[in-house]
Amino acid sequence: MSRVYNFSAGPAVLPEAVLERAASEMLDWQGSGMGVMEMSHRGKEFVSIAAEAEKDLRDLLSIPDNYKVLFLQGGATGQFAAIPMNLLRGGDRADYINTGSWSEKAIKEAKKYCQVNVAWGADEKTPMHIGAQSEWQLDPKASYVHFTPNETISGVEFHWVPDTGDVPLVADMSSTILSRPVDVSKYGLIYAGAQKNIGPAGLTIVIVREDLIGDVLPETPSVWDYKVQADADSMSNTPPTYGWYLAGLVFKWLKEQGGLEAMATVNKRKADKLYAEIDNNPFYSNPVDPACRSWMNVPFVLADDSLNDAFLKEAAAAGLSTLKGHRSVGGMRASIYNAMPEAGVDRLIEFMQDFARRNG
Amino acid sequence: MSRVYNFSAGPAVLPEAVLERAASEMLDWQGSGMGVMEMSHRGKEFVSIAAEAEKDLRDLLSIPDNYKVLFLQGGATGQFAAIPMNLLRGGDRADYINTGSWSEKAIKEAKKYCQVNVAWGADEKTPMHIGAQSEWQLDPKASYVHFTPNETISGVEFHWVPDTGDVPLVADMSSTILSRPVDVSKYGLIYAGAQKNIGPAGLTIVIVREDLIGDVLPETPSVWDYKVQADADSMSNTPPTYGWYLAGLVFKWLKEQGGLEAMATVNKRKADKLYAEIDNNPFYSNPVDPACRSWMNVPFVLADDSLNDAFLKEAAAAGLSTLKGHRSVGGMRASIYNAMPEAGVDRLIEFMQDFARRNG
Repeated sequence: MSRVYNFSAGPAVLPEAVLERAASEMLDWQGSGMGVMEMSHRGKEFVSIAAEAEKDLRDLLSIPDNYKVLFLQGGATGQFAAIPMNLLRGGDRADYINTGSWSEKAIKEAKKYCQVNVAWGADEKTPMHIGAQSEWQLDPKASYVHFTPNETISGVEFHWVPDTGDVPLVADMSSTILSRPVDVSKYGLIYAGAQKNIGPAGLTIVIVREDLIGDVLPETPSVWDYKVQADADSMSNTPPTYGWYLAGLVFKWLKEQGGLEAMATVNKRKADKLYAEIDNNPFYSNPVDPACRSWMNVPFVLADDSLNDAFLKEAAAAGLSTLKGHRSVGGMRASIYNAMPEAGVDRLIEFMQDFARRNG
Repeated sequence: MSRVYNFSAGPAVLPEAVLERAASEMLDWQGSGMGVMEMSHRGKEFVSIAAEAEKDLRDLLSIPDNYKVLFLQGGATGQFAAIPMNLLRGGDRADYINTGSWSEKAIKEAKKYCQVNVAWGADEKTPMHIGAQSEWQLDPKASYVHFTPNETISGVEFHWVPDTGDVPLVADMSSTILSRPVDVSKYGLIYAGAQKNIGPAGLTIVIVREDLIGDVLPETPSVWDYKVQADADSMSNTPPTYGWYLAGLVFKWLKEQGGLEAMATVNKRKADKLYAEIDNNPFYSNPVDPACRSWMNVPFVLADDSLNDAFLKEAAAAGLSTLKGHRSVGGMRASIYNAMPEAGVDRLIEFMQDFARRNG
């Protein structure tokens, strides 16, 4: 077996130690005589796995007691619908900040359920900067303010937290959760599809302040009614048990790495060195305002687009996989989530230097 | 490692060969240098895994070309909402047949979206029989007729297919799909949560006639809009990739077993011998009308309820796990899906005989 460095934007690389443990327990979890995938979600074995995963996530993010943690299905795209269904609470308006493709998708879906005010959006089709909060036109009657802390496609990331006063702040953290500490108390709701920094696709985590839940639109599907799921410990229907278990293994791994402060140090170092190479080497460039460059997703283009295919082919041969940029922006994208070892970033930089020398 | 015989109603036992293969490929799928869980859903590796799984399912069930196969999230309970959202098609009424707990849950959720006519429902709280179609009071203006071919909790199963003429027939096959051949052309839509006879929890399969899709309620979340998902090969958002892969391994395993005719033969034999023991041994009984006893979920009670705990404890010690009946019906339940080896049923019967001898 030879592992590659996998720069996929998601589903994405997972820690080897986690995969090894999952493989070793596949047919027999801790002497139970069955694999986790085969366990009743109501049995004591899985209930303990589920509770421990939630506890570890609460520890990692220092989640206050007045927040519920839900383990749901449907992805962040499912939450694009579930959030207005749950958080309008009798209102009919919501604020959205448009910083890129994922913001736009959230906006489009929310319009099925309420009047959306785009409180800030750049003129560019794909924004390469984030407007200061003083530029935002917030609606005083909005039931919540939604934003996307990290735009996976363009690599635009907030390095500050908006202050929306008493209006709940809602964050799609799919591609940035667990990459650094977060002050959960500043948010009304944080959600994340698991397939970037948590675990496998098919699990969605929602962290929501408990006073916000319980007043839903009548057409809310019960599996996405936060109150129903919170009251049932996310088991009002069968949860995605295997994803929940794997997320728990990732949470343990993060604790072993030293928690989110330690992850932040490594993640910043990984991003800094990659952006330094892109900025210092005339062969490469990145169009994003340096004040809001993502630590997680680093898009870059080659000075000569006609070399893209050669770059990708030679990178793959060097064990550097899935570097092609999203079709909407072209070029390359290196997603360097928690599970991407620093050695992978170092190898990528060496390859970039070598490729530039040979083709520059 | 010592595996037990796991009679869980779901999530449920999976074929050992499937789990062994999944474990062996966990860190490196076929020399790709990454596990399936880590692959981009848009990459050629996963696209090939996904397409092959769909092809194998189509082969197994002989699914006609004018049916779409969707790999979704949210479970059957999610579909309880998605079905009226997608299938009312301008109408506002639907027929539901109430044969037990899962029918009831489907009815409760559907009432959020339309006027539900319960076309048949027994007087008993938990029906132990199924009314002949001549007893059904179908609404001529119903957009569809929904039924539950197998009730997982009570062990009541249809051994015939309703004839609803031009009104699409919709079946929740979560606990019976792939247990025997099905004439898909008799149905408008078949759906199933994966965690009983297909794979891990978190994957939901929908098989739907293509002329029925595309006219949805305005509040339909895009992840559950069948047309949107069909047009995107179930990848309008990130699908539950690992569950899809495991389902594909199960489909291959079913083909190796000889397909659904062969499974039906074994499944009927497993069920027949277990019911024979229950009927012939005065120590045990099953209250379900013999004409509609489930092949998949076999509930039974002991003549002396006070022995339940001893039965479960001794069964577990003998490697027979998760036999406790659902809290709503009590007693025992042996779920004997495809992946339960006949040897497991034989072992259970031996244990039942021995327990009865010692305690009768």
